[in-house]
Amino acid sequence: MTSNELPQAFVFDAYGTLYDVHSVVQRCETCWPGKGAQLSQLWRAKQLEYTWQRSLMKRYAPFSTVTREALAYACEAMRLELSVAQMEGLMGEYQRLSLYPDASLIKNLRGKKAILSNGSPDMLLPLVENSGLGLDAVISVDELKVFKPAARVYALAEERLQTRNIGFVSSNCWDALGAKSYGFTVYWINRSGAPLDRLGFKPDRVLSSLDEILQ
Amino acid sequence: MTSNELPQAFVFDAYGTLYDVHSVVQRCETCWPGKGAQLSQLWRAKQLEYTWQRSLMKRYAPFSTVTREALAYACEAMRLELSVAQMEGLMGEYQRLSLYPDASLIKNLRGKKAILSNGSPDMLLPLVENSGLGLDAVISVDELKVFKPAARVYALAEERLQTRNIGFVSSNCWDALGAKSYGFTVYWINRSGAPLDRLGFKPDRVLSSLDEILQ
Repeated sequence: MTSNELPQAFVFDAYGTLYDVHSVVQRCETCWPGKGAQLSQLWRAKQLEYTWQRSLMKRYAPFSTVTREALAYACEAMRLELSVAQMEGLMGEYQRLSLYPDASLIKNLRGKKAILSNGSPDMLLPLVENSGLGLDAVISVDELKVFKPAARVYALAEERLQTRNIGFVSSNCWDALGAKSYGFTVYWINRSGAPLDRLGFKPDRVLSSLDEILQ
Repeated sequence: MTSNELPQAFVFDAYGTLYDVHSVVQRCETCWPGKGAQLSQLWRAKQLEYTWQRSLMKRYAPFSTVTREALAYACEAMRLELSVAQMEGLMGEYQRLSLYPDASLIKNLRGKKAILSNGSPDMLLPLVENSGLGLDAVISVDELKVFKPAARVYALAEERLQTRNIGFVSSNCWDALGAKSYGFTVYWINRSGAPLDRLGFKPDRVLSSLDEILQ
């Protein structure tokens, strides 16, 4: 792919794509030694389930609420006592996630760059604020009251960036395929060698890290 | 609750509520010794994820297709080779699931009785055919091209049974809460002692088996 074939704008998913959620795992492990990885996995799984279920029920709640509710569920399922201080500490981690080392390179991309995230502004803006990514827009699903992979979410990015020629980048395969179903050019960042989700679509490119977009 | 307070019609979820999916687990174990439980769990999780994601993407596919796609994903994720014969054998199990022992009692309930299921007719009708449950209707989401917990699905049961006074029964908590959000009286059959899902609603009754509805 030569540079003049690149999309006019790049839209990135945040959690797991630009930002490494690993520090949340570490804090889980500090709170409940030996349980951190399992808790973190269940927490993330429930967090996503709740976004899909609430969207279908038309009972949207901000991602910060959904994330708290998923943590409460996960702790109860694993019979771990969760104090208010632990809840706040874990939620605080979400505002201090590290950028992946390859994420800082995106500032070198030509054209507009934006984040499109399930994160509500109360979680997302403090996280993005000091990242130095040179973003043109930070777009949250919150104004639509529906979560990814609803088509309206991807349409919002198009509308905000005023171009239909968008390259969408996500490490969440279902998110990448939701964007592909909508009509974007899609880059699936498959850092872990996961199988492709079977949702009737394929990404345009499967990359093992973000810097391959620049190549 | 006295009998004259019971709803005019009862609507039941099928998979996991009336029908025990355990025989699918056993066949997974026969195909891949030592991996059956883990495979079955991942298969079920992906099956549900795909129903939610496809519904949000407005890319409905019949539950039989989604179930096959989820199995293909789960096998690839666990690095298990899946032959066509194994796929067909496992899909065949879905048409021969056992009724839970307490499920046969529902024929004693007064009023209309129906199934409301994600299952497409090709999976659901052969299963229900010989169950002797005395059902007035077997309703599939297939005609709406959207899966639970979309509100339209619960509305379909109301329309078909011609009553607003419906008792909805499911062992899937998110399904029970989707029905509650829609406005049904809801009985969550919590056989495994699972935590309540945090989706902003609570079931009217939490029961450990179906026969408690009769009591």
